[in-house]
Amino acid sequence: MFYAKSIAVVGASADPTKLGHTILKNLIDGGFKGDVYPINPKADEILGKKVYRSLVEIEGEVDLAVIVVPSKFVPSVLEDAGKKGIKNVVIITGGFREIGKEGEKLENKLLEIAKKYGIRIVGPNCQGINNTHNNMCASWPLITKKGKIAIISQSGTVAAAFADWLEMENFGFSCFVSLGNKSDVNEVDLIEFFGKDENTKVISLYIEGVKNGRAFMDVAKKCEKPVVVLKPGITERGKKAVESHTKSMAGRDEVFEAACKQTGIVRARDFEEFYDFSKALAYLPKLDGNKVLIVTSSGGAAILAIDVLEKNGFDVIYTPEELKEKLKGVTPDHAILDNPIDLTGDANAEMYKNVIELSKDYVDAILVIFGDPIEGASEVIEQCWRGKPIVVCYTGGSEVERREKAKMQSNGIPVFPTPERAAKAMVALRWWYGK
Amino acid sequence: MFYAKSIAVVGASADPTKLGHTILKNLIDGGFKGDVYPINPKADEILGKKVYRSLVEIEGEVDLAVIVVPSKFVPSVLEDAGKKGIKNVVIITGGFREIGKEGEKLENKLLEIAKKYGIRIVGPNCQGINNTHNNMCASWPLITKKGKIAIISQSGTVAAAFADWLEMENFGFSCFVSLGNKSDVNEVDLIEFFGKDENTKVISLYIEGVKNGRAFMDVAKKCEKPVVVLKPGITERGKKAVESHTKSMAGRDEVFEAACKQTGIVRARDFEEFYDFSKALAYLPKLDGNKVLIVTSSGGAAILAIDVLEKNGFDVIYTPEELKEKLKGVTPDHAILDNPIDLTGDANAEMYKNVIELSKDYVDAILVIFGDPIEGASEVIEQCWRGKPIVVCYTGGSEVERREKAKMQSNGIPVFPTPERAAKAMVALRWWYGK
Repeated sequence: MFYAKSIAVVGASADPTKLGHTILKNLIDGGFKGDVYPINPKADEILGKKVYRSLVEIEGEVDLAVIVVPSKFVPSVLEDAGKKGIKNVVIITGGFREIGKEGEKLENKLLEIAKKYGIRIVGPNCQGINNTHNNMCASWPLITKKGKIAIISQSGTVAAAFADWLEMENFGFSCFVSLGNKSDVNEVDLIEFFGKDENTKVISLYIEGVKNGRAFMDVAKKCEKPVVVLKPGITERGKKAVESHTKSMAGRDEVFEAACKQTGIVRARDFEEFYDFSKALAYLPKLDGNKVLIVTSSGGAAILAIDVLEKNGFDVIYTPEELKEKLKGVTPDHAILDNPIDLTGDANAEMYKNVIELSKDYVDAILVIFGDPIEGASEVIEQCWRGKPIVVCYTGGSEVERREKAKMQSNGIPVFPTPERAAKAMVALRWWYGK
Repeated sequence: MFYAKSIAVVGASADPTKLGHTILKNLIDGGFKGDVYPINPKADEILGKKVYRSLVEIEGEVDLAVIVVPSKFVPSVLEDAGKKGIKNVVIITGGFREIGKEGEKLENKLLEIAKKYGIRIVGPNCQGINNTHNNMCASWPLITKKGKIAIISQSGTVAAAFADWLEMENFGFSCFVSLGNKSDVNEVDLIEFFGKDENTKVISLYIEGVKNGRAFMDVAKKCEKPVVVLKPGITERGKKAVESHTKSMAGRDEVFEAACKQTGIVRARDFEEFYDFSKALAYLPKLDGNKVLIVTSSGGAAILAIDVLEKNGFDVIYTPEELKEKLKGVTPDHAILDNPIDLTGDANAEMYKNVIELSKDYVDAILVIFGDPIEGASEVIEQCWRGKPIVVCYTGGSEVERREKAKMQSNGIPVFPTPERAAKAMVALRWWYGK
C-alpha cells in the first residue's frame, strides 16, 4: 500500500474543482515514479495521462487503487479491483457508515467483496494516504517534504493541519494516513506497520475511539518507537460529538489514560502538544536523566519554563560552584549564573556557545532560550548539536527569530515558540526515555 | 510620561550598537511629533539632531528624560533632571538593586533625588516605554502599530515577545511599559493610569511579585477594564528563580490565585494564554451567556474545542429542531447538524455565512472553525461581524489560511491557530463578562 509502484485513480477528473482531479494531479506533481492510471469511462486523456474505462482494462500490474467515485459505484469498482488482482485500496468517498443505516449496509458490502479477494482497505470517507519517501501523495494538499513522523488520523483535517505545520516548519513527514471509517485498516495495523518502517521515527495518532482495546494495547506496548496520541472526547458532550463525527465510542477517559501509562504511549492533551511532542521525539536526541540547565537572555521566559519543568519531575539544578567559576570568564559582569544562566540583554551568539559547551557535562539536557533578536543563534546550536538534547526556544526575536528559526529547522533542529512549549517538549522526552 | 511632548535621551550615541543610539533612532523613526534632545557630552550632532551636553543646557521644556548612561552616572543625571524641572524619567540602565547590596544603595540614592524633585521613575533596569498613540517608541524594537492592549511587564523580553506577536498579527498595542526594578512606578500606578487611558481596552500584566498586595487588589478591583495577568514562580524552584531575576517575592500561589478570583483579574497560565486572552478581550465583543454553537469543516477540530468548552462551563447546545430544519436548506446532504455543524470537506465560505446568520439568534456565541483552505473566509466573517462574539479558528489551511487570517486580523478580527486556543479565549471572555 505505502510503497506501491503503480497506482490507479478511479474517478479521475479533468475538472480542477473535483477531488478526482486533485489526487491525480498531486500524484503527478509530487513526482511519483511509478505508473499512474486515471480511470474514467467518459474521458480519453487527463493531465497528459491515458485514461482507462475501468480497472480491468489496465494492461500492467496495479499495486494500489484510489477510489473517488460516488458511494453507490464503489462496490462495483471494488469488484473490478478484485478481478484485476489489486490488493490495496484507498476509498476517499464518503456516504457510508457515517451517514447511518443505509451507509452501513453499503460499507458492509465493501467488506464482503474485500474479503473475497483479499483486499485491504483504507477508508472509506477519508482523505487518502501520502508516503513522501515513495513520492506518493494520494491525498491533499500536496506535501512532498520527507520527514520522520508518520501521521495516522481519524480526522482528515486534523491530520492535514498537523502536516501543514510540519511543512511550514521544514520538517515534513514520512507518511500521512487518514483513517476515515476504519472499515478495515485501523490504528492497530498501522502502528505495527510504521513500527517497522525504516523512514519513520515517531508515530503520531489522532483517534476518537479504539475498536479493539486489547489489540491496541498489545501493539502499542510492542512498538519500539514513540507513539504520540491525541484523543478527545473527554467530556460527556465531547463523547457525543465523537459519536456523530465518526460513530466511534470515545470510552471512559480514565481507562484510556491508564492504558497510555501501561503501554508507554505519550499522550498529548491538545493539538499543540500533539505537534510539539511528535517533533521533539522525532528530532531531539535521547534524554538520559532529569538534570537540566537553562541558558537565556530573558529571565522571565526562563522562569515560565522552570515552573513547567519542576512540576514534571525535572531537576533544575543550582549551578555548581566549579561551573560558576568557569562561566564567569565567558559571561557579562551582570549576568546571573544561578541557573537559569541569564545572559541578559547583552547576550550574543558567542556567549551562548561558550556557556553551552562549558555546561554540557554537568547536566542531562540544556534548554536554550533566545529571548531577543540574537543573530547567529542557528550556527551556535548547530556547532553544539551532538550528544545530549539541546532544546531551543526562540521568542521575541521578530525578523531575526524567523530567519534563525527557519535555518535551524531546515537542519532538523526543532525550535519551540514559547518557553512553556519547549519545557513541555522536554517532559515528553522524559516520559518516553524514562519509562 | 506617556503623552510627553518633548523627550531627552541621556546617553544618546552615534554608535549603532549602543542602546543610546537605538532609542534615539526609534523615537525619530517612530515619528514622534515633539522635540527630541540627545544628550552626550562628547558629540555635536547625532542622527541629524543637535546634541546637548547635559539636561540643564536644553532651552525648551522637557516632559520626559530617558536615561541610558552607566549606573554610576545616573544619580547626577537625575539631579540635572530635577534642576531642569523634568517630572518623568525612564531609566534603562541596569546595575542597581538586581546586582546586590551596592546596587541597592545606588537605587535608594535615585529615590531620594526623585523625592526631592517630585520625579516619577520607570525602571531602572528596564526596556523603556512605548506609547504608539503618541508615536513614542522610547524602547526597542521599534513598534508603531496602534492597538488596544497596554502591556506592562517586569520582564522586558517577555513584553517584547508579546509585542512582537501583536505586531506580527497586525494588532499592535496601545502602550508598552517595561517595569524593571519598579523602584517607583509599579503595576498599581499603571493599572490605575491605563484604566483611564482612552486608547487602552485591555491591560496585560506580566509580574513576578507584587509589592503591596492590598493596593494591587484595590486597584484591580476598581479597574473597569480587563486585567490579564501572567505570574510565574508557582513552583519552589520557580520562586527561587524569581528572586535571582528581579529580587521579587513570588509569594504563595494559592494566595495570588484567590486574589485574582476576588478582583476579577483574568489569570493566564502560560505565555500563549496571556497573549490569546488579551487579544480576545481587546477585540471580541461582549459575551452575554454560555450557549455556544460550532460551525466547522473539521469534525475532529470541533471535538477538541468542545472538550475545553464543556470543562469550563459552556453549554455546547444540541441544535434545536427548528434551526436544523433551516440549516438543511444551506448545507450539504452529508453535513452533520447536531452541533458541531460539520460542513465537512465540501465547506465553502457561502455555507459558513448562511449557517452563521441562521444560527446567531439561538446562542450567545459562535465558534467558527475553518479546518481547510477556505477562500473568502475573511469576507464571510466581516459580513457577520456584529453583535455576538464570533470566535474564529483557522487551521490546516496552508497559504490560504495565512492570507485570510492576515486579512481578518488587519481588520481587528482575532483568529486563533488551534481549536483549543480559540475555546480557551472564549473561556476568558466568560470569566470577564460573567463575573
